Amino acid sequence: MSGYAGEVIALAGGVGGAKLADGLARLLGGRLTVLVNTGDDFTHLGLHVSPDLDTVMYTLAGIANPQTGWGVAGETWSFMAQVERLGGPAWFRLGDRDLATHVFRSERLARGETLSAVTASLCRALGVAPALLPMSDDPVRTMIASDDGELAFQDYFVRLGCAVPVRGIRYDGAARSRINPALAAREAGLSALIICPSNPYLSVDPILAIPGMREWLRGRGRPIVAVSPIVGGAALKGPAAKIMGELGAPVSVTGIARHYRGLIDGLVIDEADAGLASEVAQEGMAVRIAPTVMSAPEHRVALADTCLAFAGEIAGRTRR
Amino acid sequence: MSGYAGEVIALAGGVGGAKLADGLARLLGGRLTVLVNTGDDFTHLGLHVSPDLDTVMYTLAGIANPQTGWGVAGETWSFMAQVERLGGPAWFRLGDRDLATHVFRSERLARGETLSAVTASLCRALGVAPALLPMSDDPVRTMIASDDGELAFQDYFVRLGCAVPVRGIRYDGAARSRINPALAAREAGLSALIICPSNPYLSVDPILAIPGMREWLRGRGRPIVAVSPIVGGAALKGPAAKIMGELGAPVSVTGIARHYRGLIDGLVIDEADAGLASEVAQEGMAVRIAPTVMSAPEHRVALADTCLAFAGEIAGRTRR
Repeated sequence: MSGYAGEVIALAGGVGGAKLADGLARLLGGRLTVLVNTGDDFTHLGLHVSPDLDTVMYTLAGIANPQTGWGVAGETWSFMAQVERLGGPAWFRLGDRDLATHVFRSERLARGETLSAVTASLCRALGVAPALLPMSDDPVRTMIASDDGELAFQDYFVRLGCAVPVRGIRYDGAARSRINPALAAREAGLSALIICPSNPYLSVDPILAIPGMREWLRGRGRPIVAVSPIVGGAALKGPAAKIMGELGAPVSVTGIARHYRGLIDGLVIDEADAGLASEVAQEGMAVRIAPTVMSAPEHRVALADTCLAFAGEIAGRTRR
Repeated sequence: MSGYAGEVIALAGGVGGAKLADGLARLLGGRLTVLVNTGDDFTHLGLHVSPDLDTVMYTLAGIANPQTGWGVAGETWSFMAQVERLGGPAWFRLGDRDLATHVFRSERLARGETLSAVTASLCRALGVAPALLPMSDDPVRTMIASDDGELAFQDYFVRLGCAVPVRGIRYDGAARSRINPALAAREAGLSALIICPSNPYLSVDPILAIPGMREWLRGRGRPIVAVSPIVGGAALKGPAAKIMGELGAPVSVTGIARHYRGLIDGLVIDEADAGLASEVAQEGMAVRIAPTVMSAPEHRVALADTCLAFAGEIAGRTRR
């Protein structure tokens, strides 16, 4: 598939994460494991919806909707129109094709299958070569503290469009959750771990909140490289920058470096942030300056290539 | 709404029943109660599907698909296409719009609402004036005895396309089921009961199998009039004639008369069966010869009118 040796584990949430995971998948195929956030999973209309798993899965399957950043390309909306006619909730849009995933998953979960097993079935059917692992088969739910009390994640993210200030974030259930047991089986031949440019608070921290996860990632003895989701002091998509500001973190690659300090060995920052490279280095990590905005498919592969090369260099340095 | 006095209760199953119910609804509006078979309800892809309730509801709402006899007009099929892609079952077709009903219903049932309450919500949203009552809020499931063992109803009806001979029929759960409690409230002002031209074995008998149902219907002291679903020795749609033959009943209006003997006061038979009128009368019931084939909307109203007039005449005769 490529000249890269070894297996890679990538941590990913939504759109940005999915794009880099896609770039990595094109280089690594089945040697890639994507560990995906399930903190924004929820039950809607009685169906189990896993937004980040779906975004990554659809992206790797080549059927993601490029306009919306979620859902399936060529989608139709008859179901939603009828739900509205029936007086049902319309704030969370479920496309007709997308719905097949939720119905399929919900039925299997109700039969007692794990989220991992269902995800594996879906990926097999859609021809996704990498292993897509939910971070845990146990429910972890991201909760947003607002001035008006705690909000379920999708209430904050979709229903309110992130319009209220975030006062705190809690990963409900995390303390009781267990790392996806399938992760251990992906350790053999591991050469690098990549934290994709997903929202640190909403996509990556829920993964890191699982007891033992940080220690497991660090304990592999392989370089952990992150890509900053903040470019030029702003997020490319989503509320990462807004939340960083609300929680009092510097809205910059330096803020990202501090957030992941102690966990990562290197941070990839965009060329727009080259001036902050030394500030990032002071947080005790290697820095790589590279184009990180993935506006075309070839950028995904280029950034994946950058990450793998960067991790390789860090590994080489450590060995010396 | 019309010159008809009183309330009417109609027993109905699928397509033929829905058409006459629609004719009655146009004459009676909210003074009509349709008591609907739920013996072919089943769980598919984790969703509660009520085929007969939906056929009647869509027909009365004016959104039934005239081509298929089930589902919603102007339907799209993106969900099914994706289900097939995911390797899910394709033998029972769920359209994108239709799916909204099943998802809505399943979620409400899971929350503990009764099938009656969910049906009332759906009907309100779709502007259906008559009261649509599931025959029972308890599960009753029609089971088909075949040479290869017992089949769940939809396995027989849809998956196998009724291709295997029926050796017997059982209404699983009927003995423990209770008449829909809302039925009693529809008694005030009742002037007639109509058994629509639905399949006697698959659509009407499950209703009659609920303990106390026959007695309740007879006990109203109002004429019970049925419309023969057999015309010229054949069923207009569905396996009624085939099943009558397989179970050893005469495949004719006489067979229908015998089937309902002791329950009904009058049978409406088609002009094609005028020659059998005296045979039907010998089963101890009044006979009305009329056009019963509802190939156009105006035929529905005409047959409804025939039924109500026939019931009125029977009531008048009884009073003399």
